[in-house]
Amino acid sequence: MKREYCGLFGIYGHQEAARMAYFGLYALQHRGQESAGIVTWDGAAIREHRGMGLVHDVFNERHLGKELKGQIAMGHIRYSTTGVSLIRNAQPFLVRFKDWHIAVGHNGNLVNTLELRHELENEGSIFQTTMDTEVFVHLIAKYLNGGTIEEAIQKACAKVRGAYSLLILANNKLIAVRDPHGVRPLVIGRLNDNYVFASETCAFDLIEAEYIRQVEPGEMIVVEGGRLSSLRLLEKAPKRQCIFELIYFARPDSMVFDEGVYERRKTMGATLAKEAPVDADFVMPFPDSGNYAAVGYSQASGLPLELAMIRNHYVGRTFIQPSQDMRNFSVRVKLNPVRSMIEGKRILIVEDSIVRGTTIRTRVKKLRELGAREIHMRVSCPAIRFPCFYGIDFSSKGELIAATTPVPDIARFIGLDSLHYLSVPGLLDSVNEKDAHCLACFDGNYPIATGCHQGKMCLENESKVTG
Amino acid sequence: MKREYCGLFGIYGHQEAARMAYFGLYALQHRGQESAGIVTWDGAAIREHRGMGLVHDVFNERHLGKELKGQIAMGHIRYSTTGVSLIRNAQPFLVRFKDWHIAVGHNGNLVNTLELRHELENEGSIFQTTMDTEVFVHLIAKYLNGGTIEEAIQKACAKVRGAYSLLILANNKLIAVRDPHGVRPLVIGRLNDNYVFASETCAFDLIEAEYIRQVEPGEMIVVEGGRLSSLRLLEKAPKRQCIFELIYFARPDSMVFDEGVYERRKTMGATLAKEAPVDADFVMPFPDSGNYAAVGYSQASGLPLELAMIRNHYVGRTFIQPSQDMRNFSVRVKLNPVRSMIEGKRILIVEDSIVRGTTIRTRVKKLRELGAREIHMRVSCPAIRFPCFYGIDFSSKGELIAATTPVPDIARFIGLDSLHYLSVPGLLDSVNEKDAHCLACFDGNYPIATGCHQGKMCLENESKVTG
Amino acid sequence: MKREYCGLFGIYGHQEAARMAYFGLYALQHRGQESAGIVTWDGAAIREHRGMGLVHDVFNERHLGKELKGQIAMGHIRYSTTGVSLIRNAQPFLVRFKDWHIAVGHNGNLVNTLELRHELENEGSIFQTTMDTEVFVHLIAKYLNGGTIEEAIQKACAKVRGAYSLLILANNKLIAVRDPHGVRPLVIGRLNDNYVFASETCAFDLIEAEYIRQVEPGEMIVVEGGRLSSLRLLEKAPKRQCIFELIYFARPDSMVFDEGVYERRKTMGATLAKEAPVDADFVMPFPDSGNYAAVGYSQASGLPLELAMIRNHYVGRTFIQPSQDMRNFSVRVKLNPVRSMIEGKRILIVEDSIVRGTTIRTRVKKLRELGAREIHMRVSCPAIRFPCFYGIDFSSKGELIAATTPVPDIARFIGLDSLHYLSVPGLLDSVNEKDAHCLACFDGNYPIATGCHQGKMCLENESKVTG
Amino acid sequence: MKREYCGLFGIYGHQEAARMAYFGLYALQHRGQESAGIVTWDGAAIREHRGMGLVHDVFNERHLGKELKGQIAMGHIRYSTTGVSLIRNAQPFLVRFKDWHIAVGHNGNLVNTLELRHELENEGSIFQTTMDTEVFVHLIAKYLNGGTIEEAIQKACAKVRGAYSLLILANNKLIAVRDPHGVRPLVIGRLNDNYVFASETCAFDLIEAEYIRQVEPGEMIVVEGGRLSSLRLLEKAPKRQCIFELIYFARPDSMVFDEGVYERRKTMGATLAKEAPVDADFVMPFPDSGNYAAVGYSQASGLPLELAMIRNHYVGRTFIQPSQDMRNFSVRVKLNPVRSMIEGKRILIVEDSIVRGTTIRTRVKKLRELGAREIHMRVSCPAIRFPCFYGIDFSSKGELIAATTPVPDIARFIGLDSLHYLSVPGLLDSVNEKDAHCLACFDGNYPIATGCHQGKMCLENESKVTG
Repeated sequence: MKREYCGLFGIYGHQEAARMAYFGLYALQHRGQESAGIVTWDGAAIREHRGMGLVHDVFNERHLGKELKGQIAMGHIRYSTTGVSLIRNAQPFLVRFKDWHIAVGHNGNLVNTLELRHELENEGSIFQTTMDTEVFVHLIAKYLNGGTIEEAIQKACAKVRGAYSLLILANNKLIAVRDPHGVRPLVIGRLNDNYVFASETCAFDLIEAEYIRQVEPGEMIVVEGGRLSSLRLLEKAPKRQCIFELIYFARPDSMVFDEGVYERRKTMGATLAKEAPVDADFVMPFPDSGNYAAVGYSQASGLPLELAMIRNHYVGRTFIQPSQDMRNFSVRVKLNPVRSMIEGKRILIVEDSIVRGTTIRTRVKKLRELGAREIHMRVSCPAIRFPCFYGIDFSSKGELIAATTPVPDIARFIGLDSLHYLSVPGLLDSVNEKDAHCLACFDGNYPIATGCHQGKMCLENESKVTG
Repeated sequence: MKREYCGLFGIYGHQEAARMAYFGLYALQHRGQESAGIVTWDGAAIREHRGMGLVHDVFNERHLGKELKGQIAMGHIRYSTTGVSLIRNAQPFLVRFKDWHIAVGHNGNLVNTLELRHELENEGSIFQTTMDTEVFVHLIAKYLNGGTIEEAIQKACAKVRGAYSLLILANNKLIAVRDPHGVRPLVIGRLNDNYVFASETCAFDLIEAEYIRQVEPGEMIVVEGGRLSSLRLLEKAPKRQCIFELIYFARPDSMVFDEGVYERRKTMGATLAKEAPVDADFVMPFPDSGNYAAVGYSQASGLPLELAMIRNHYVGRTFIQPSQDMRNFSVRVKLNPVRSMIEGKRILIVEDSIVRGTTIRTRVKKLRELGAREIHMRVSCPAIRFPCFYGIDFSSKGELIAATTPVPDIARFIGLDSLHYLSVPGLLDSVNEKDAHCLACFDGNYPIATGCHQGKMCLENESKVTG
Repeated sequence: MKREYCGLFGIYGHQEAARMAYFGLYALQHRGQESAGIVTWDGAAIREHRGMGLVHDVFNERHLGKELKGQIAMGHIRYSTTGVSLIRNAQPFLVRFKDWHIAVGHNGNLVNTLELRHELENEGSIFQTTMDTEVFVHLIAKYLNGGTIEEAIQKACAKVRGAYSLLILANNKLIAVRDPHGVRPLVIGRLNDNYVFASETCAFDLIEAEYIRQVEPGEMIVVEGGRLSSLRLLEKAPKRQCIFELIYFARPDSMVFDEGVYERRKTMGATLAKEAPVDADFVMPFPDSGNYAAVGYSQASGLPLELAMIRNHYVGRTFIQPSQDMRNFSVRVKLNPVRSMIEGKRILIVEDSIVRGTTIRTRVKKLRELGAREIHMRVSCPAIRFPCFYGIDFSSKGELIAATTPVPDIARFIGLDSLHYLSVPGLLDSVNEKDAHCLACFDGNYPIATGCHQGKMCLENESKVTG
Repeated sequence: MKREYCGLFGIYGHQEAARMAYFGLYALQHRGQESAGIVTWDGAAIREHRGMGLVHDVFNERHLGKELKGQIAMGHIRYSTTGVSLIRNAQPFLVRFKDWHIAVGHNGNLVNTLELRHELENEGSIFQTTMDTEVFVHLIAKYLNGGTIEEAIQKACAKVRGAYSLLILANNKLIAVRDPHGVRPLVIGRLNDNYVFASETCAFDLIEAEYIRQVEPGEMIVVEGGRLSSLRLLEKAPKRQCIFELIYFARPDSMVFDEGVYERRKTMGATLAKEAPVDADFVMPFPDSGNYAAVGYSQASGLPLELAMIRNHYVGRTFIQPSQDMRNFSVRVKLNPVRSMIEGKRILIVEDSIVRGTTIRTRVKKLRELGAREIHMRVSCPAIRFPCFYGIDFSSKGELIAATTPVPDIARFIGLDSLHYLSVPGLLDSVNEKDAHCLACFDGNYPIATGCHQGKMCLENESKVTG
């Protein structure tokens, strides 16, 4: 499972700003389930509430109705990691510096954190966390001596390398920033007279805000006194938007990078059908991630679509150990095939990606036990062969199977009669903007130099918890 | 929303009986989210743990690993009602009578509760709850004086009228009972040498038990010392199995009444396509309830299927009030359309049922705002016109719209270009066993006399909480 | 530690009856920390809330302000037992019988529970708990057929044997009952125009009600429509009030049995000083239980009083295991001597009772380690040699040391230079009413026949949980 | 109520260091109930757990047995403030700086926080909290560039002004520091081969460690590799130990400043008896704070001691609103007089201090209602007329009544027949070391210059939360 990412939401000028931030984060919950935080500017100071868990666990009516006063709000959610989850690392990250109260929410990952940290420590900075966001904040503070907040952010951005979409609440200003390559998404909308920001447009749908456009790569947008101004951060750089947002992460009802996610996924499925047709009785997704590519494959190929793998909607964070003889329990509890649909059938499974392959293998084995005659798989993205240094934690859960294993061996490992990954050209054919995406996880061409593979790879353990 | 029902699970002879019951209930969670309880026989007494909430909230490792000792276990889950949820009403219902320790789990609803209760009170019985199950237990106790437990249950069943699938743990016996009409489901399976019982077969899939057959209407099955014996309860009666299990309640990967739920729903959709074709750009379900009929409709009609209404999987039991201007929030937070798929389209929505129509209306209105050209709806069951006295709480959330409103008016209310309900003959065509179901909610022919509309209708408020 | 007892509170006619019951129970918390419950009569039905834990954990503003509607309220608290604490056993005990809604709160213990239970079961009653209170309720229901509630209670009381102070909420009546011997306390007060009842007067002090008198042994008081009437239950019987209330259980600021607890304890200490003088440097209580007798001893003997054993007020229900080498931790964490006061001193400890002696032994050993020259102990009650069947759980924590061990051996076991228990005549000299108390735990003369030592001794394990 | 202070505990070299820290904090709980934290050094990094609430609420077996690994541990507790309690402010304060992992626990209050903060901000430091401790940590980091940790701490101490007892865990060193005046206490002990530190000796008693001596004012003690070395921090300064520790804060069974608290309090009471005798029927403390001075007064005066005001031991953090007509509820619920002892009596109350006087007034009024003939009060410390800038929050709950009101007027306000405060010479007569204490709250002679009344008075609201 790829679990990384964070979600951002900001609003300027609303009577119930914290409440809107709550609902904005609620709609973005798929981008992070570990922790949530909201900060507001009450006219004199920043108020905050952060906690571990889902948005609806972290906040209550008292927080939203009483404590988080003010008409400017910004919120952040983080993904769930294995191991120790630390409230210390929950964002937004909050500091006070002279007359400034600054809160920063960050989606992405910096790659020169360590060298910047050493540099700052030599100048006397001390750190309370291992988050790259804290380095960014130190840089802002450093450059604030004798400058405006906008200049300080600009200088800090010139100093850091990596992927970052940022929302910054600095006293009465709400500032949105996207790195020059635009790796992570960030969009602007309007709710009546208020400007809103979010990682994806699905947050706008929930609060009934109108989508305007995305924050452009390398753009800094400042909202103050209800007015919006746009500044260019740095020299232009080629767009390198994370194509995995379109393949997997973003919600299918969202727009990111100005593309409709649902249609892109359908098109990937359709392209796949052209690239690798198969004679099967039906097409079946593993819900919900494979659903949309499966629809596309079915329509392009003419094979019927069956929703014959059922997802249990009540799976919680259970800590109850299964019995000794309940093998592969954690998979089985989530996905159960419709027995009667399987026996004697030639089944084509459409999935959106394979990371380790073990979950899929377990379910494929079950299908065999239930009497499936043939099982083929088509994957709606190319094989993931390289780690991501810009904010996706492919590797945290184990090796990338495709990094070391040829496709026929993966098919054998999973127990498939055939396996095909969408080609890189096929993938690019399936999106609107062709030369605008980071494809490093497929081809190893990293658009942002990562030094000696710095970034999270080099940092100690806890630094995986960046978002 | 139709929220009623309960779920049952029992196991005889397993080293970790309580743990298996936990997972059995886990798989049946869709049948009840209000409370959960498990009892075990430890060789000398019944142990119990019950609580409000989902299965994974109610039980922890200590309950399953330490406290609920014994190799016979039985569990129960209840649905969530509005209003006060009472731990007092959580099942299994537990009593001690002379040397007997008896626990009863009940799915269904009795219709002569009140008259039996008065009769029992005149003989000196006192009641602690308003549950019909307590009446049943009093009857067992009454008939236990000078008889076996099997005889006592048989006599109690002769006395009560209504729908009941029961699991009874009586000292070292596990007893399963289904009312003569077989209104509610109950199935038998085997896990190695142990007999297991459940409301639906999906519970067997999770623990990897093998499905044997259903408990027959009017059958009592007694497991003791690992051996199973079957007794006939009463004179035969016509099968009147609740067809709503097949239409809506049961999980699509389950067998109930010896029919595969997934295929029945697909067939209903296909029949609907024949009964009421429409010229549309695509078929779309409201997930997840409409999914399977929509697949059937799409395949039978040749219209493409689109999954263009997206369900938010993180919706919790939120108590946060939306802002004043966030209308229809509770619907919007659950289902969001893919905007780009809607504009200019002729859309055919397939739903499995309409109770009040207000939720659907809200989403149809949204589709109109997004520019849908035509919106048609096909419903995969007949119009629900009569209340259910056997365990479905159609009426608790408001009136049944079809009870009082002609179909064209419903279409107008919802804002549809056309609306068609599956006909009763069409519904019967879609299942295997034709004359075996209760259709009272469609045609008003109640198979079990309800007196002056006794049962839950006559009881005071709290008695709605029966399951 | 003697942990038994329950506390009762009732109020008739107050606008915020549930809230007053809450505070009444709050003041009586020393009588039971296991569970708490409040019921109210809302004009049509009884409302209830019960839970495990302290009063301030069980209730919240919503319970008191919204749910527990009505102007008649009754509450109950239970003591904490070792082993499994069951919500099922929390009181008030609630039943519905015909048109009656009845809630019963019980302090005391019946001794013919088992035979009554068998009798009732033969007539068809079934039981959900092992509480003697449930037997009492069945009897009321039985006698209600064709009679008034007052008659039914009277007949039930004629049938049971044992100790019982009862508050009964029966529809719109609030009824207080005390057994013919008056073993357990119950007092009446007035708050403006409302009648109130409580186990001890300290509950009246907190809500600023005025103490009127105690409910007399064998008296039944009925409050209805704001008017109070008194009925005699049964033929007269000699008063046998539990003297342990005065020695140990009741709060020192309470009146029970029309005696001031503080002064009785001081007098016991003073009598002790006369019975068994000792040459010591100072008198020291083990706080807080020994405080008042120590004051009396000090004043009568002229020896100075020192409060040199300090009690930690933050001891919670900790579940943290101490380290291996932290012996006697649970005692040490509660009581710590003032080191500098101990060395070279001749110390006289005044305690109110010794049950097992192990706690005291641990602290005496510590005093020796700190250099105490002599350690004497004077106990302000006679040696407890016999179990109590009327509601005190002397025996649940181990044997009564004095039942089997001569006093000199107890002194040796504890490590004392001398030990003296107050004599029975000395104890009776210390109270106002001489022939009005049960002394069975000292002399074995049980005022109420207990059959073959029935009562809690004969019942199965769980029945210890009676209150 | 004076609620301020923090508590510290440290241990070096124990197999179960975190567990010992837990129990050490447990014994110090009276010094702070708002939050608790423990850090350990696991050989490579610092582990931490902090939380809001009492020690036994914050930690569980998993924290102590598994997560807080390592043989060096340090813990901190904070007092409870009104208003928002922030986990962000819980200590120990933790930072990483180059190769250093540093945790700081601080008891006391710095007075030049603001100017140091501005200075540091001008050099680029940023702050996440408003705690003075964070300033201290920044200074250490600043001076660590090119120096040892000992030198850095020494330089930081030279820079700050105020009261501070510190425990610092810096990688594998445990360092204890006390400011040059020794305002706050800190003691050293030994547990087998391990050194332990605590705010008071009562923490040693609980874990059965042996008291060695106090950390001297201006001393820095470093424990590394099990060996202890002592360094002088700065030039000598006169001892100015907070005499309020002896009067009120420390536990009576503790030693602080090498004085036994219990005996000092008794002596204060005795001195008071000489300074201001009164003809009364008995002496009575308001428990528990007045207990020990009352014992001293009684012994010196010959007046009998009565414990006639009873404290409710079950008072929790209740949020239940009393009824409208329940005046002064929060006082009444804690302290209730023994009615029968009061009528017609001439009562002498001994208290340890008066801050606002309102609580006392309420109870005195009650005594009048119960018929007390005369009520006199003797206070075992001089009148508190000046705010404390070194860590006691006299002022947070309202004005100091004695700062503005002459004693006769205070007596009138409270409703006393006479009132006397212990004189400053009388207080000094009651302790062993005469010229070693800070008396600023009585005489306004602040031993450490506070600039324009800096320190907590000047900082914004939240800075009250220093400890």
